[in-house]
Amino acid sequence: MDSKNKGKVAIVGSGLIGKSWAMLFVGAGYRVVLYDVVKKLVSEALIDIAQRLQALEKSGMLRGKESAEQQSKLVTGSDDLEECLRDVIYVQECVPESLEMKTVLFKDLDRLADVRTILASSSSAIPSSKFTESLTHRERCIIAHPVNPPYYMPLVELVPSPWTSPDVVERTRSLMTDLGQSPVTLKKEVRGFIQPRIQYAMIMECLKLVEDEVLDVDDVDKLIKDGLGLVFAFLGPFEMNHINNEGGIRSFFALEGEEVDAVASSLGPPVSMKATTDLIKKISDRMTEAVPVECLAERRKWRDDRLAALARLRNTLQHS
Amino acid sequence: MDSKNKGKVAIVGSGLIGKSWAMLFVGAGYRVVLYDVVKKLVSEALIDIAQRLQALEKSGMLRGKESAEQQSKLVTGSDDLEECLRDVIYVQECVPESLEMKTVLFKDLDRLADVRTILASSSSAIPSSKFTESLTHRERCIIAHPVNPPYYMPLVELVPSPWTSPDVVERTRSLMTDLGQSPVTLKKEVRGFIQPRIQYAMIMECLKLVEDEVLDVDDVDKLIKDGLGLVFAFLGPFEMNHINNEGGIRSFFALEGEEVDAVASSLGPPVSMKATTDLIKKISDRMTEAVPVECLAERRKWRDDRLAALARLRNTLQHS
Repeated sequence: MDSKNKGKVAIVGSGLIGKSWAMLFVGAGYRVVLYDVVKKLVSEALIDIAQRLQALEKSGMLRGKESAEQQSKLVTGSDDLEECLRDVIYVQECVPESLEMKTVLFKDLDRLADVRTILASSSSAIPSSKFTESLTHRERCIIAHPVNPPYYMPLVELVPSPWTSPDVVERTRSLMTDLGQSPVTLKKEVRGFIQPRIQYAMIMECLKLVEDEVLDVDDVDKLIKDGLGLVFAFLGPFEMNHINNEGGIRSFFALEGEEVDAVASSLGPPVSMKATTDLIKKISDRMTEAVPVECLAERRKWRDDRLAALARLRNTLQHS
Repeated sequence: MDSKNKGKVAIVGSGLIGKSWAMLFVGAGYRVVLYDVVKKLVSEALIDIAQRLQALEKSGMLRGKESAEQQSKLVTGSDDLEECLRDVIYVQECVPESLEMKTVLFKDLDRLADVRTILASSSSAIPSSKFTESLTHRERCIIAHPVNPPYYMPLVELVPSPWTSPDVVERTRSLMTDLGQSPVTLKKEVRGFIQPRIQYAMIMECLKLVEDEVLDVDDVDKLIKDGLGLVFAFLGPFEMNHINNEGGIRSFFALEGEEVDAVASSLGPPVSMKATTDLIKKISDRMTEAVPVECLAERRKWRDDRLAALARLRNTLQHS
């Protein structure tokens, strides 16, 4: 499809997440208007996006068929919200995780954007029902929560509120697929959305293993990154157990169900964060010894290089 | 080190896990004697190992510095347990997961093997205290549980019994590190060892998300493989949260602790396998539709190709 026909989207908020969304959209050929309240922030963000796209082109990781230069030209900036929202099919809100800020902003978005425009929030924990209930066209509001860094992490959690229209859910899901992302649709709002729920269920067991002196802190991380984590780069837990058993996942539950029950019921209640200062100190002391706070940015770069390489590998394998 | 000086190990059981261990040991330059009760099984296993090593050499994934042919020569076979155990420093038991079989076998191993020889079991769920308690030299028994396929999955769970000597734990851990594997030491026996505990904690939440009609079956798997799973190929959950926060994992617990508590306490009790036949049917129907039982072997090959490519990638990144 010609990028002229793909339509225009608005990104509200020029921080890291806003810039990441902009890069995803232009990679798929959409025109983007990036908004922030301060003009200087917008112009700095545009320069940063252009530089990031150039770097991606150099490393062979640029998405889409157009050059970095051409993609950069698809992004313009604005510090005028009304102007920014003109003729856009979709708005991606990327302001800080504050209920007050989101409430004020969504009132403006609802008032200024065309009624057919989807209003999506990048919120990572606040459900949209908390800041869209009183809006005139609340049925076009949804959460589209990305995972950091979105350029290499395809997952997007779509969380409708009770009043989000099914059509808005479907259009947002199609749009995310068109970006090359991997949308997952929650059929209702749940606390922590979904990814944190699964992560915290794991973390709870990891904390208990250290607290009960079963494992050292370092061994917890090795257990995942040198074991299960390698499989999870390609398969979810259901398919993993499906293909591990001769008769599929049905056999897994039939043969291992009793063991699953026994292990699950031995997991015990979750560790409370309030009651575990010694445990938290033990873990953070060890983690800080391994990667001191002043080296975290470097280690994040190390991680992102690996996620980029894995994204490239998965892409190659998919087309081989 | 010259392979002549690395010593000899015995592998008891010539199935898939036995053959995998043999390939790891010869890759690191150890001599291996592969034992099984039936001579034909042993000779078939030796041929299979030679072919697998050739295939690994062709695909550039062969471990170690010696050729596939040289490595194959390091493995010999035997159907005489006493002969097999002569002069070995380490025994890796790989018989089926049956308490009775392991009990009988470990009695023989204890009687026949030199007292300094470590007796390790590949048991994936039965703790060694159940089949080593009455042995004369029970202090040299330990569990070394690999993850399938071990050639691409470095994790080995080491599980001592209450009477395993600390020296045996340390020597086994060093040996696993020398093989290029990633040993994790449990300081005591726990039900399900460790990896299944963490996996089942996740699976429980995944089952509940489907049961509560929050997610479709397919979206559960996408949630992991297109999100968290990509990070877990390089980082464990502690380091992930350490580098995701400006102040490290200490800040994560300080800032997110309340949310972790709230989410964790909303997870609810585990789903019981006995009480969820409809749920299990729903999941297995969908999984079988996506990958029919007759295609599971092909899909396992698909997975192993990806795990091999990921192992190669991690190796390259480590040395870059």
